[in-house]
Amino acid sequence: MKRIEQLIDRIIDRVNINLREPAFDVGPYVRGLIPVEQFERFYAFYGLSPHHPLHFHFRGSSLAGSYFLGKCIVEHSVLYKSDIRGDELKMRGDVLCHKGLQVPLHDDEVIRIKDGFLVKTLVHNYSHDPENPEEFLIQNTVSLHYANIHGAPVEGSFLGPFATVDLTTVHDCVIGPFAYVQVGELAHREVEPGTIWIRSDGDFDFRYRFPDTVLKRYVNALSGRNPEGVLMDFVEARKEDFQEVFDGAVRRPPRIDVPPGAALSRYAVVRGDTEIAENVLVAQRAYLEDAYLGKGANAQENCYIIRSRLQGWNVTAHGGKIIHAVLGPKVFVGFNAFLRASEDCPLKIGEGSIVMPHTVVDLEEPVDIPPGRLVWGYVSRRADLEHQSLALEDLSRVEGLMEKGAMRFEGNGARFVEAFRHRIEHILEANGAYFDGTNNVGHAQKGQNISFNIMQPYPEGEMQGLYPTIDIRP
Amino acid sequence: MKRIEQLIDRIIDRVNINLREPAFDVGPYVRGLIPVEQFERFYAFYGLSPHHPLHFHFRGSSLAGSYFLGKCIVEHSVLYKSDIRGDELKMRGDVLCHKGLQVPLHDDEVIRIKDGFLVKTLVHNYSHDPENPEEFLIQNTVSLHYANIHGAPVEGSFLGPFATVDLTTVHDCVIGPFAYVQVGELAHREVEPGTIWIRSDGDFDFRYRFPDTVLKRYVNALSGRNPEGVLMDFVEARKEDFQEVFDGAVRRPPRIDVPPGAALSRYAVVRGDTEIAENVLVAQRAYLEDAYLGKGANAQENCYIIRSRLQGWNVTAHGGKIIHAVLGPKVFVGFNAFLRASEDCPLKIGEGSIVMPHTVVDLEEPVDIPPGRLVWGYVSRRADLEHQSLALEDLSRVEGLMEKGAMRFEGNGARFVEAFRHRIEHILEANGAYFDGTNNVGHAQKGQNISFNIMQPYPEGEMQGLYPTIDIRP
Repeated sequence: MKRIEQLIDRIIDRVNINLREPAFDVGPYVRGLIPVEQFERFYAFYGLSPHHPLHFHFRGSSLAGSYFLGKCIVEHSVLYKSDIRGDELKMRGDVLCHKGLQVPLHDDEVIRIKDGFLVKTLVHNYSHDPENPEEFLIQNTVSLHYANIHGAPVEGSFLGPFATVDLTTVHDCVIGPFAYVQVGELAHREVEPGTIWIRSDGDFDFRYRFPDTVLKRYVNALSGRNPEGVLMDFVEARKEDFQEVFDGAVRRPPRIDVPPGAALSRYAVVRGDTEIAENVLVAQRAYLEDAYLGKGANAQENCYIIRSRLQGWNVTAHGGKIIHAVLGPKVFVGFNAFLRASEDCPLKIGEGSIVMPHTVVDLEEPVDIPPGRLVWGYVSRRADLEHQSLALEDLSRVEGLMEKGAMRFEGNGARFVEAFRHRIEHILEANGAYFDGTNNVGHAQKGQNISFNIMQPYPEGEMQGLYPTIDIRP
Repeated sequence: MKRIEQLIDRIIDRVNINLREPAFDVGPYVRGLIPVEQFERFYAFYGLSPHHPLHFHFRGSSLAGSYFLGKCIVEHSVLYKSDIRGDELKMRGDVLCHKGLQVPLHDDEVIRIKDGFLVKTLVHNYSHDPENPEEFLIQNTVSLHYANIHGAPVEGSFLGPFATVDLTTVHDCVIGPFAYVQVGELAHREVEPGTIWIRSDGDFDFRYRFPDTVLKRYVNALSGRNPEGVLMDFVEARKEDFQEVFDGAVRRPPRIDVPPGAALSRYAVVRGDTEIAENVLVAQRAYLEDAYLGKGANAQENCYIIRSRLQGWNVTAHGGKIIHAVLGPKVFVGFNAFLRASEDCPLKIGEGSIVMPHTVVDLEEPVDIPPGRLVWGYVSRRADLEHQSLALEDLSRVEGLMEKGAMRFEGNGARFVEAFRHRIEHILEANGAYFDGTNNVGHAQKGQNISFNIMQPYPEGEMQGLYPTIDIRP
């Protein structure tokens, strides 16, 4: 048996030990999912720039097709086409404020992955966890296709495909496919597939769950093989386009104009008649086709913007997909949201609207979402908006319980809206959307001139598919 | 001033301190030679395979376009398109025999480059130095285009373009352009340009020096800019072909049949109607065009074999160039030899002949070198063979002094011939030329399935062109 097979078995055992209470066996989801030869076929990358902290340490792991930036330690883990980004890591001396307490950091934050099996998972830094501000730990965890682990330390858990854990400490949990949790802390829980759950203790609790029939059509998790459904079909159909940008070792100039204050990763796919305005940030692994991104818009990793116009200061979060839509200024599209319109059935979303993470808008008729709305769930016709959207203004007035269709909100609506808006403003600021030529410098201006460096596994022998021990520092 | 400029200045000062006795200033050869932007334009590689030892450690250095295999430590150095190979490094527990003494190695051998500036230089392992068998040190040294440092620890020295130091410990020396030394040990000496010097203390001493007019035509070293001459023109004209094999990050299948026991590096350039037989080894950065390599032939790095037939068990050493020639079995072509014939003026070399390192055969008429000859110096017509070649059999009978043209031999001819033949046999064996399907396994059979991994420097900022600290182990 190859060493990589032993490693995978050991990871399965470790996760199962953690999940012995709900008695969940991750084995069937992991074994046979990726043929051993595949681990050897791809190469991994690390990014190098003067604008990001730097420390990589890889040991006893397979990193096939994965990408790393910042400070990342990976031990005894299998990362398959994952994306581990530390470009907003907290720094030594920073002070983390949490409920009035001030925690100064005695070290730079580092992403540490140990005994994990992550498939096509995006890990983003700045762990929200006030208990361990210097280490963003992912341990004894299996996470499947297009899951997002966003500022969320995860231990002993299973994340289904397209699941997102956002600013949440997760301990011994099963997060079902396409479920989204942003709840601060979660232990020994099974979150059902297609659940959208946002909670701030004492403030509010937002929950929605997709109907099973809809969920299966869009994300159908299967043990022992790739997930199926509309979302997988969509990304798989565009896989080849990324191959071409990553195959070349050398840099190429961007294929479109990059105006002042804007940044376009050369590892983004840019096709057709695409235009970006000032202060736009297009991350690596973003996909733009016949797209217009207005001033200060940002397109995050794994997002797709196709035949669409974003009028400015728009956030398209990790994994967000926008096809044939016109989005007014400051429209926010959350993680893994899927907005698919067409020439016959176009989509318009008015200024300042918030499309919740994991929302599916897949149109059978033209739909026009007015400004200032919160949208969630599944929308295919105008009538669906009745139960799947709400004016932010109305939500702000809610105090106590409110139900709308399958959505249940409890708590202070104003705080919910305020928290969301605050976060959107933070994202825009951090990415440089408000740069005026001198002030408000963000990621777009700091330069995305990152060199991408290739690492490959042992090509044959017992260690085939595993990487050597690599340590990289400034 | 960028950090890389400071580094180059410091290296110049260190080399000059070592060379204060002959008062040689390397500054003019180094300053301005490579524009600072160039260091940032290229990426470096390291090779990974289960068949080679592994430890890379890079610190405070620029490695632009360089390649590493085995165990290599580089500190405070500038390696520009150099090739540092440790694929035959001595191993812990090996016993180095030297003049009856047995030195067991307490550690694996490692190539260590410190405060060096090497341009397009090939460094090959297995340091012959019995005093430091575990460390092959190159320190306080400047070495220019297409120089070879072959098993030769070098300290405080300057090597001109196309110079070769072979199995020689070099201390505070200036080795002129296109000079070749294989003399065991050398200190505080200036070796004149175009000198070929092979000495084994108490056994023999072979010397030849190219006429200045010929030398300048083939290798003309200039301070502050690239060398000129036929050899530079030749390699520069084929530079683009290498770019294409190194640009792609992924492996491609070889473009020609690779028969049993043979190995063809996928980082070799193979063009036209080229064929290789069993047990052939074609190294990375070898260039084959309309070439036939018979059984057990090997083509080493930086060699070029064009429109030529090598009938078997041929060695084409590092930097050897063969154009339009037919070479009988066991013909040996030494380092940086340049054999250029043409359709009208073809070259034939008979079985078992030895073309000395740094020999120039550049034909104005057809030339047929009989079997069993030693060839050196500059040959353009048949008549030149009179003073530039000798039957090995005749040389074997020499005892004492013998002069032929500009060549001067002193000592025991039989020992010289025997030493040469012994080395050729060793090269053939080590490379797997005598593999019979079971026994005599060499490099060709051990597999050249090496993965090539890219490293890039900081793309901008103060550290532009310098690489981070990188440590890679099994």
